[in-house]
Amino acid sequence: MREAYPGAVLSTLRGPPYHDDQAAQVLRLKSAIAASQGVLFVTAEYNRSMPGVLKNAIDHASRPYGHSAWTGKPAGVIGVSAGVIGTALAQQHLRNVLASLDMPTLGQPEVFLQAKEDLFDADGNLGLASRRLLQDWMDRYVDWVTRHVR
Amino acid sequence: MREAYPGAVLSTLRGPPYHDDQAAQVLRLKSAIAASQGVLFVTAEYNRSMPGVLKNAIDHASRPYGHSAWTGKPAGVIGVSAGVIGTALAQQHLRNVLASLDMPTLGQPEVFLQAKEDLFDADGNLGLASRRLLQDWMDRYVDWVTRHVR
Repeated sequence: MREAYPGAVLSTLRGPPYHDDQAAQVLRLKSAIAASQGVLFVTAEYNRSMPGVLKNAIDHASRPYGHSAWTGKPAGVIGVSAGVIGTALAQQHLRNVLASLDMPTLGQPEVFLQAKEDLFDADGNLGLASRRLLQDWMDRYVDWVTRHVR
Repeated sequence: MREAYPGAVLSTLRGPPYHDDQAAQVLRLKSAIAASQGVLFVTAEYNRSMPGVLKNAIDHASRPYGHSAWTGKPAGVIGVSAGVIGTALAQQHLRNVLASLDMPTLGQPEVFLQAKEDLFDADGNLGLASRRLLQDWMDRYVDWVTRHVR
């Protein structure tokens, strides 16, 4: 295993509805994105698309016009769900949006994780197969960020 | 012009983030959907997809599992935006979601309105071309709802 990479987890995306003024939590989100070298999207899938909460956070940080926090930030997309398609359709919608935001996004390898019983072992660690898959993905993602970071 | 059709406007979609418990406003939304014969989605387009706020409302009303308010409700999709594609890409994402929710959705005619100066006349009424387009669309939508209403 390679060493851990430093990163910040922006898992709390409780932004207000978009039509509100940009609240303090939105400005914090935009600051965190601005300070990052890359953005790793770990998505769920709701109704064959990305969660509304994720899309709302993306919309907030993309505005006001001309002041998007996302522009040029290298991105990666992975996801996990209970179903066999493992967020494949949510990821496709998300990729459409990231392209419009001008975020260089890693193409391959794709990771569509299914939350099955063997995803984690008895100690709560990732099972070996998933661990290898994700380590390979992470190595490729780090290379991608390194290439595109501004 | 045909007479106006009765309808309720659910324009205020200020739902809480999805991971909250279902709040009173979500239950009101679900009740309004349950009482309706059809659902007309008028969407904006943010970043080449539907607004996160709309998706969040859809997600809320689709849960808990097995108790979606959307199932079987006939639907129509239109939209308006400042750009020349007039929400075409947002509508495609929305259609993917409506299909997964088992909502019979009117296919044609499609309406991709651009919010240009001549969309409304000097008195604030829809210009003649848009009025004809939307009247034709509405007649088709009403026929569609009539055919699929349960």
